Amino acid sequence: MAEKRYLLTPGPTPVPPEVLAVLAEPMIHHRARDFKGIYERSLARLREVYRTANDVLLFTASGTGAFEAAVANLTSPGDRVLVVSAGNFGERWAALTRAYGADVVHVRLEWGETPDPEDLRSALAEAGDVRVVYLVHSETSTGVVADVQALAAVAKDAGALVVVDAVSSLGAVPLETDAWGIDVVVSGSQKALMCPPGLAFDSVSDAALEQAARATSPRYVFDWERTRKAQAKLDAPFTPAVSLVKALDVALGLLLEEGLEAAFDRHARLGRACREGVKAMGLQLFSPDEDRSAVVTAIRAPDGVDSGDVVSSLRDRLGITIAGGQGDLKGKIFRIGHIGWFDVFDITTALAGVELVLADAGADIERGVAVTRALEAYESHATV
Amino acid sequence: MAEKRYLLTPGPTPVPPEVLAVLAEPMIHHRARDFKGIYERSLARLREVYRTANDVLLFTASGTGAFEAAVANLTSPGDRVLVVSAGNFGERWAALTRAYGADVVHVRLEWGETPDPEDLRSALAEAGDVRVVYLVHSETSTGVVADVQALAAVAKDAGALVVVDAVSSLGAVPLETDAWGIDVVVSGSQKALMCPPGLAFDSVSDAALEQAARATSPRYVFDWERTRKAQAKLDAPFTPAVSLVKALDVALGLLLEEGLEAAFDRHARLGRACREGVKAMGLQLFSPDEDRSAVVTAIRAPDGVDSGDVVSSLRDRLGITIAGGQGDLKGKIFRIGHIGWFDVFDITTALAGVELVLADAGADIERGVAVTRALEAYESHATV
Repeated sequence: MAEKRYLLTPGPTPVPPEVLAVLAEPMIHHRARDFKGIYERSLARLREVYRTANDVLLFTASGTGAFEAAVANLTSPGDRVLVVSAGNFGERWAALTRAYGADVVHVRLEWGETPDPEDLRSALAEAGDVRVVYLVHSETSTGVVADVQALAAVAKDAGALVVVDAVSSLGAVPLETDAWGIDVVVSGSQKALMCPPGLAFDSVSDAALEQAARATSPRYVFDWERTRKAQAKLDAPFTPAVSLVKALDVALGLLLEEGLEAAFDRHARLGRACREGVKAMGLQLFSPDEDRSAVVTAIRAPDGVDSGDVVSSLRDRLGITIAGGQGDLKGKIFRIGHIGWFDVFDITTALAGVELVLADAGADIERGVAVTRALEAYESHATV
Repeated sequence: MAEKRYLLTPGPTPVPPEVLAVLAEPMIHHRARDFKGIYERSLARLREVYRTANDVLLFTASGTGAFEAAVANLTSPGDRVLVVSAGNFGERWAALTRAYGADVVHVRLEWGETPDPEDLRSALAEAGDVRVVYLVHSETSTGVVADVQALAAVAKDAGALVVVDAVSSLGAVPLETDAWGIDVVVSGSQKALMCPPGLAFDSVSDAALEQAARATSPRYVFDWERTRKAQAKLDAPFTPAVSLVKALDVALGLLLEEGLEAAFDRHARLGRACREGVKAMGLQLFSPDEDRSAVVTAIRAPDGVDSGDVVSSLRDRLGITIAGGQGDLKGKIFRIGHIGWFDVFDITTALAGVELVLADAGADIERGVAVTRALEAYESHATV
């Protein structure tokens, strides 16, 4: 029998069969009328998922491409910007803004910390004249989902533009681009949007576009104005990943059919189920035990166990792919993703596999309780 | 009955069913071992198709992304570079090098002209101290395939690095990256490589990497050194378009199974068949009538006929997608692509459709000869 595989990482995430099916359709031309209809609907659906009236610009790129666009279009060398980081993707904002010659004020928290709006207020007051604040909504490396509503409000108070990495959060946890006044929301296709990787997005406010018009950093394929003008005519500036746009159209249709609020609730329950199961077997959470952290659950490896071995054993023995730790957390934590096309039996599969592997490794693990506890927690709608 | 569609443009091109099939497989993780095997084989197959021992760097991007990489990594503001253009994609080199602040010597030919190596020699001598020469192999907007072997030799004589756009030529017409001493060959997935759009490539010589180490233009996702280091560990620097890499692996396997020389011969015969059919019905070629121009055939619309109407009628009445003219050639030419997964019946479909539409538009067209003449020309192995 062919081995069954379980993709339980925080991205790429499982792709629903309806979405996979359109990938296998014969190629069509990106300037043909049938593609334009798909392109128009995808862009409209993105705006709906983003909850914005702004343009959402679509790039054929990894998520980091949309990060880079949000730096290249807003930065002239020497501009002062502020980056809040508490993990791998926050560090990426710092690396990118430095690569573009910004004067970077880096509010660098320990990996796993949750950024505090009042700390941001102090940092902005101290720095003075910050043009752009770069934030991370869901820090995929640690499982922390920040309160970007509060953080964005502080940044707006200081007169800065606000850019948010929502690659792993968009569609999984509440994000109100317009209501929260976020100038640029960066996201990608391969997380809660249930598509293969290869498409990335920037929503752009009028204020962001105005600053882009003055920014002198060189850019071409990631140039917002070129992309915006082309999208207005439903004519991508460069040949887009046609198959992936078709997939996006179908996947966003599925998400909107479920309803964003229902999807947020499902993700909150998946996260709760995962955390409760983890705690039931006696493991320690690395990510916060709160409903907002519904994207990925980061778990400390038991004493004496290398988390990389847990990941390898799950993959090699059981066909289950989860993620290890990044950076300094390598070997120390493992991460179970639960965004996109996930239900509770993906969580119980992950928990049962982790329990089996850790028990076999001789770790002190409570057997036979995690799955039941996860199922109970999933049914509970109460906010913890 | 569902309408049958015929994609006969110079890109995106038809994707073989074996390639479409892998796109519909369940998602896998880009750091999982099964993906690493696919990634390694794709990169090795790319080097084989490129005929290079250099690294071929793979980006998740439109072809223009790999153009941009070849500018961003080689340019410091003020560097003198020379661009040879004779169509839309040559103009793109000029736009990109200017966007990165290069001192651009633009040898700008009329669209449709074939660049002359001796003219390049004179231009280089006059310009002096040119660091990089940017060339186009197959100018998709006009159907001209340049003699890049001779052009590259002239550029090397002048001590410049040579960068070649081979987006629509790689795998269709002979290109010897190493034997011809080309420092950077830029290509993309959606032309002769028979994949969907979304992947783009730069081969990089040691000399190109040395210049990149000194180049000060900001870049991040397109940074060669970051990409090269990651690929050496079979670990993409950013989440790649996993599905498209799987497709590329299969498609390159098909191409190499056919054999590059056999593929070049097939494309030469397809081009010949198309040109002979076009001439037989009394139309005038815009692209040169030579075997090298085997990628796309550009045809002048008959007097009094707008080529855009030909394209629309083919699409709307017959389900056949071909391409119109770009830039100043809009309305004046139409283009039949024949790269990648094409055989002679794709050519006869295009010719029969064009004949029907032009005859109905009242153009003075010889009826009933194009298809037969095309089939005869396809069988002829003699070099015209």
